[in-house]
Amino acid sequence: MKPQLVAGTRDLAPLDVFKRNYIFDVIRSVYTRFGYQPIETPAMERLDTLTGKYGDEGDQLLYKLLNSGDYLKDVPVELLADKISNKALPYLAEKGLRYDLTVPFARFVVQNQHNLALPFKRYQIQPVWRAERNQKGRYREFYQCDADVVGSDSLLYEAEIVQMLDQVFAQLGLKVVIRINNRKLLDALAQYCGHPDKFQTITVIIDKLDKIGEQGVKDELVKIGVDEVSFNKIQQVLNSTTLEQLDALFAGIEIGEKGIAELRQVFAFLDGYATSNTVQLDFTLARGLSYYTGAIFEVVVDTSIESQKNIKMGSISGGGRYDNLTGIFGLPNVSGVGISFGADRIFDVLNDLNLYPTDQFSTVKVLLIHFDEASLFYGFRAIQQIRQAGIAADIYPKSVKFQKQMEYANKRQIPYIIIVGESERESGQLKLKNMRTGEQFTLSIEDIIQQLR
Amino acid sequence: MKPQLVAGTRDLAPLDVFKRNYIFDVIRSVYTRFGYQPIETPAMERLDTLTGKYGDEGDQLLYKLLNSGDYLKDVPVELLADKISNKALPYLAEKGLRYDLTVPFARFVVQNQHNLALPFKRYQIQPVWRAERNQKGRYREFYQCDADVVGSDSLLYEAEIVQMLDQVFAQLGLKVVIRINNRKLLDALAQYCGHPDKFQTITVIIDKLDKIGEQGVKDELVKIGVDEVSFNKIQQVLNSTTLEQLDALFAGIEIGEKGIAELRQVFAFLDGYATSNTVQLDFTLARGLSYYTGAIFEVVVDTSIESQKNIKMGSISGGGRYDNLTGIFGLPNVSGVGISFGADRIFDVLNDLNLYPTDQFSTVKVLLIHFDEASLFYGFRAIQQIRQAGIAADIYPKSVKFQKQMEYANKRQIPYIIIVGESERESGQLKLKNMRTGEQFTLSIEDIIQQLR
Repeated sequence: MKPQLVAGTRDLAPLDVFKRNYIFDVIRSVYTRFGYQPIETPAMERLDTLTGKYGDEGDQLLYKLLNSGDYLKDVPVELLADKISNKALPYLAEKGLRYDLTVPFARFVVQNQHNLALPFKRYQIQPVWRAERNQKGRYREFYQCDADVVGSDSLLYEAEIVQMLDQVFAQLGLKVVIRINNRKLLDALAQYCGHPDKFQTITVIIDKLDKIGEQGVKDELVKIGVDEVSFNKIQQVLNSTTLEQLDALFAGIEIGEKGIAELRQVFAFLDGYATSNTVQLDFTLARGLSYYTGAIFEVVVDTSIESQKNIKMGSISGGGRYDNLTGIFGLPNVSGVGISFGADRIFDVLNDLNLYPTDQFSTVKVLLIHFDEASLFYGFRAIQQIRQAGIAADIYPKSVKFQKQMEYANKRQIPYIIIVGESERESGQLKLKNMRTGEQFTLSIEDIIQQLR
Repeated sequence: MKPQLVAGTRDLAPLDVFKRNYIFDVIRSVYTRFGYQPIETPAMERLDTLTGKYGDEGDQLLYKLLNSGDYLKDVPVELLADKISNKALPYLAEKGLRYDLTVPFARFVVQNQHNLALPFKRYQIQPVWRAERNQKGRYREFYQCDADVVGSDSLLYEAEIVQMLDQVFAQLGLKVVIRINNRKLLDALAQYCGHPDKFQTITVIIDKLDKIGEQGVKDELVKIGVDEVSFNKIQQVLNSTTLEQLDALFAGIEIGEKGIAELRQVFAFLDGYATSNTVQLDFTLARGLSYYTGAIFEVVVDTSIESQKNIKMGSISGGGRYDNLTGIFGLPNVSGVGISFGADRIFDVLNDLNLYPTDQFSTVKVLLIHFDEASLFYGFRAIQQIRQAGIAADIYPKSVKFQKQMEYANKRQIPYIIIVGESERESGQLKLKNMRTGEQFTLSIEDIIQQLR
């Protein structure tokens, strides 16, 4: 048989692993500095934990695990005879694969509520699985890198999130735009234009502004019965870029005033903090509404920078505040705020821009090659010394032709080789060759170690 | 609803994550030094890749993923009507969860055979899943940490494996016994005692020596028709501890002479290498035979050491040489040798012996607490400076009672606190308190950073 991968999944070769770990390390170091601590949850969750949390479409996209053993045993025979897949499901599958990190985190908080010091700051970097339709660039297994703090409604944490987003991308060398909005302003907008009942629909349409443009938004709003007067009011809000402009528009609309005050408080905390990236108020930002109740964040690549102008990529990070996350598991009134980095998209962007410090990736630094059996044994001891000095080193396993050993060094792109033959063994002076420059030195093993450091 | 974990799985709290990552880091650093490079494979594999590779029992323990959508659609109705679970399986599940890292690695090698520089050295640290019967201390999701080299039959790699096993446990501070055998000597034993046809059964019985003792082994051997004369010959081999003793016993038995020569070659490579742990020939070692064709390795905790004498734990690492790993995927004659560390068992042993460098785990170093709103804002800027210096720092999010903030610091076991009130704001001299010793200093923020470093 010819082996194959599951469609929509991929192997990571060594260079890919180094690149991905580099991204994880940067994110982890920033999370750590801000007092977030790691947890991990199992890949498998009970289906009653997962189902109903991601909408009907999400339920479809959950991977379900067949019960062990005689899995058909407990399924009512009429459901099988009529092949009613959805009704038979609870009888033959009790477990599913994690779809995101937020629901498992909510479960974790509820289960450990009596041991956690609140506010509890956790980060989590793990893969998730979604049975997406198979298409290029979309994976069925991908990593999420989440940080959330629960148990406080302080807006200080929103300010920290802006700083964390800013510092992660600064450390990665990628210029981004950090967009902020507040869900309460979207509520206020619906009231202001006279359609509080149409809040959901209006928000969904406005959220598409980037894609369909202002005329597209207008057309769709007209379709749902928004007249010229109302549209002009919406336009006033969408064209606003400062909180002062909104002050005037939302005066007297309580939820609007509250949203403005919250954003002001976030910026008060950020006062004096010098960002490396653009931080932008964006009153159209909704992120599909999700479960956000306060702040909403989104990060996109800054394409106004010359070197990044050709990057076409949606949001690479996002998040927000939710007042009721653990409510689904019977623990109400736990407010939280969090973000998630889309590691796979960031991976692709850094690839396109060649932003990886590839010279720092810990690959093998030196390969020892040799001319005869005695040199192989001699070389094996020399390599031990180099390894004991903490340097990644290797030796060709047999004394085959010089040419073949050199080809191996080249194919593995090893930057240095050591050559050992009879004369080297006798003198204790080995040849060290820099494969990039072609330079060659004759040195003792101690000096070689010095040189390789 | 009250949320629950899937039975046999667990969450890792921050301290657990630190401990496990510590083990991974040590293993990874040794693998890297020896020229091994990381790959990762997907959690999901096609069932035709996994099935038939782990024996009938293994096939039962594979987790199978239900096909997406109307999964009953293609199942022949008579299989459903009669509830024939095993025959219906291929119609409703095409994917399963990875059961080990060896089969996915074999698939990887076959799929990438034209791009790999052979010998190819890879390591892989990822979770695997097995639908084991639910019992204490046995997990259905656990990590494996494998290193394998394929594409060479050089015994130099066996020597490297002994060194890697030795160095990992030396770095972890755990004394172990590294046992070595060679599958060829087990073949030779069956010939020597006059029962080459009973090779499998004899080996399985001998493998139990640790558990059932010499009398137990004798009883079982008698049952399968091994007489006194044959048993005495087996006893001669089992009581041997050196290759010289085997020389005499296996003289003229070709496969035995070959096995002895291979082990001699491994020790020739190790000549001059000072091990930190005991390396021991063990001619009873079989490791359930698996697919090994040459060297067999196993590591157990050294209970002859006083501080470790109460540790009851089976093998914590093992491996061996296999001449035909990729043969199952149509690529014959690729010899390989590898090892696997049982991270979960090592985790438990280090816990029992208190061997973790817990003071190195990157938890929050300092918490800033404050007496009023102005101090909160002032403190938030101070904390930024500390974080920018690379120190993990946090601040209580609201100016609540001093007592409540202190409780939070204690519950999170944060070693230092900074206290800011009106006088500290005015003087720029903040109070730094060491929570362990109770010492208190009044310092500028720059001096605090210095102190925390």
